[in-house]
Amino acid sequence: MRTQVCIIGGGPSGLLLAQLLHRKGIEAVVLERKTRDYVLGRIRAGILEVGLVGLMREAGVGARMEAEGFRHDGTVIAYGDEEFGISFKQHTGSDVMVYGQTELTRDLYEAREVDGGRTVFNVEGVCIHEARTDAPYVTYVADGTEHRLDCDFIAGCDGFHGVSRQSIPLSVRREYEKVYPFGWLGVLSETPPVHDELIYSGSERGFALCSMRNANLSRYYIQCSLSDSPEDWTDAAFWEELKRRIPERHAEALITGPSIEKSIAPLRSFVTEPMQWGRLFLCGDAAHIVPPTGAKGLNTAASDVHYLYHGLARFYDDGDREGIKTYSQNALARVWKAERFSWSTTNLLHRYPDQSAFDLKMQQADVAFLRSNEAAQKAFAQNYVGLPY
Amino acid sequence: MRTQVCIIGGGPSGLLLAQLLHRKGIEAVVLERKTRDYVLGRIRAGILEVGLVGLMREAGVGARMEAEGFRHDGTVIAYGDEEFGISFKQHTGSDVMVYGQTELTRDLYEAREVDGGRTVFNVEGVCIHEARTDAPYVTYVADGTEHRLDCDFIAGCDGFHGVSRQSIPLSVRREYEKVYPFGWLGVLSETPPVHDELIYSGSERGFALCSMRNANLSRYYIQCSLSDSPEDWTDAAFWEELKRRIPERHAEALITGPSIEKSIAPLRSFVTEPMQWGRLFLCGDAAHIVPPTGAKGLNTAASDVHYLYHGLARFYDDGDREGIKTYSQNALARVWKAERFSWSTTNLLHRYPDQSAFDLKMQQADVAFLRSNEAAQKAFAQNYVGLPY
Repeated sequence: MRTQVCIIGGGPSGLLLAQLLHRKGIEAVVLERKTRDYVLGRIRAGILEVGLVGLMREAGVGARMEAEGFRHDGTVIAYGDEEFGISFKQHTGSDVMVYGQTELTRDLYEAREVDGGRTVFNVEGVCIHEARTDAPYVTYVADGTEHRLDCDFIAGCDGFHGVSRQSIPLSVRREYEKVYPFGWLGVLSETPPVHDELIYSGSERGFALCSMRNANLSRYYIQCSLSDSPEDWTDAAFWEELKRRIPERHAEALITGPSIEKSIAPLRSFVTEPMQWGRLFLCGDAAHIVPPTGAKGLNTAASDVHYLYHGLARFYDDGDREGIKTYSQNALARVWKAERFSWSTTNLLHRYPDQSAFDLKMQQADVAFLRSNEAAQKAFAQNYVGLPY
Repeated sequence: MRTQVCIIGGGPSGLLLAQLLHRKGIEAVVLERKTRDYVLGRIRAGILEVGLVGLMREAGVGARMEAEGFRHDGTVIAYGDEEFGISFKQHTGSDVMVYGQTELTRDLYEAREVDGGRTVFNVEGVCIHEARTDAPYVTYVADGTEHRLDCDFIAGCDGFHGVSRQSIPLSVRREYEKVYPFGWLGVLSETPPVHDELIYSGSERGFALCSMRNANLSRYYIQCSLSDSPEDWTDAAFWEELKRRIPERHAEALITGPSIEKSIAPLRSFVTEPMQWGRLFLCGDAAHIVPPTGAKGLNTAASDVHYLYHGLARFYDDGDREGIKTYSQNALARVWKAERFSWSTTNLLHRYPDQSAFDLKMQQADVAFLRSNEAAQKAFAQNYVGLPY
């Protein structure tokens, strides 16, 4: 079997790349380890930057997002019982789109089916071969049979634990990592969101985030210990703790209900360099992880897709190799900006076990400066809606 | 003996306060532990914020500063061999004044002599009494005799090691501190400055600063180990190391010469709260220390003087106690902003022994963001020229 681009991983970045390529007449095959239902069952972020919204439109899958997504012109930062808004619209002229990753992935799958794009599910034993030559290929097992897929390029969109990054020898890559000493306990509930914008809240008891998927689906998070497990937290205990970490007026307005999902995610910053090895290109979580504060995970994956898509389009259009040659450099430049923003926003609002009294004063001063300084708010807003590609 | 305000410490903040009060017809006595020549022999910073320039004018001692000082419209930030400018003028409409602390202190002493203000030098055994009553007084020994100075208020301008802060019981004050794991080795030389603006430089070998006092007096610093002593560093070794830490074009243009002063200062962030205890008010280094990155030490002392001067002026003018009651709160609000800026600018450009590869990438990303983002430059410039009182 032969295709132009073999995409390993059928999550949002792999699918978005496949759709964008398809619209340019470039053929791709997507290999996914799990089933479609499994992929769509993952509960993930839902804040889309301007750039990702544009890519969805360009991929021809923006209609439902435009109709059902919510535009957010700003966000709320709370610290203790004080709070202030940062207007994205005022500082950047742009907004962000609230549209769950599950919905976005569903739209991409549906478009791919309509377009007849090939996706192979339940693949096992994916192996990348000859990535440094002009004739790379991928082998995998599906339905009990080993298959070989010859291609021009391989896009590694298979996440942090995928095979793609690990196919690049350790001698040519360097990994950068920070593991944070806490996690996020997240609850999804069929209740109206407490506020029409997100609330990022720092408090004496730790961080909390009031987020949402739609008008009757709320997503709340609280910073928790890495030794906690979801079973340690009854719904009642979660709501009680959340209320203690957000300003009183929001705590009073909070409508609670049974959790329909409850899970703990550790927080990590991670980047591998380079993001390219011969004809293998890493995209998204395969190459980098951000802590979720600031909602940059999916958006940074989309930024990689942007650079790879344009590089491949130029190559197939007129043989220009510049875009694929500079992929790693261009993608990483933007990745590090998103890493910086996610890291600094995490530092701004979380409690750390080793935080000294002076460190805490510096955190308070950072929040106070952001609260009082227009230029600092503008820089925050620019990062939040997404720095230019 | 009796006066209205007893000022402990004859450094720049004590003298500036005395001159400002004098112009309002409020009498002060300044008590200084050393001689005038000793005070004038101290080599210190020389970048004056807009606010301090205004206070000097208000104190009637701005003439020589205006004539001999240099106005700097911006500064250079270097990192490795890359550099960029941040324009204060463009982002804030203001500039800063380069005028050595020694000169400023000399101007204040001369004005005080002309005005007949009383300054007692070589005082020993200063002791603060009854600060929490309406009849505070200070005792001290001068010329072998114990003296008592009754007053309405006491201004503690006697620095980090002075008696004033230590006169406030530990039970009512809280100290915040960070000690940095490095120092600054500074050299003064009678050579023309390498550049017409300051160069703050981060490098693989650590931080360096190219500063100046006037057209033929340069002040250079390099980050050094806390275990170093000035004798470990020959002039030749200093210049060699400095050149390795600044962009090549500046290293090539650097004119070196014999050092006329060479010393090592540790870096510390320190704040005590509150800055008032009854009728005792702390000003400047008596209450807080900043690391020198960003030149906020003298300027933050001046900001305290501003609040105390206005508080006392209101009190003597019409008995309004509001300004003195809110002194600690107002002074501290601005102190913490300066602490934040000094701490973050130190973090931006120094190497830390425990810096991980990821931490270093975040530092590089911070510099890259500052380099590329107008709003971040504006926030930096606003801090550098001085946030409003």
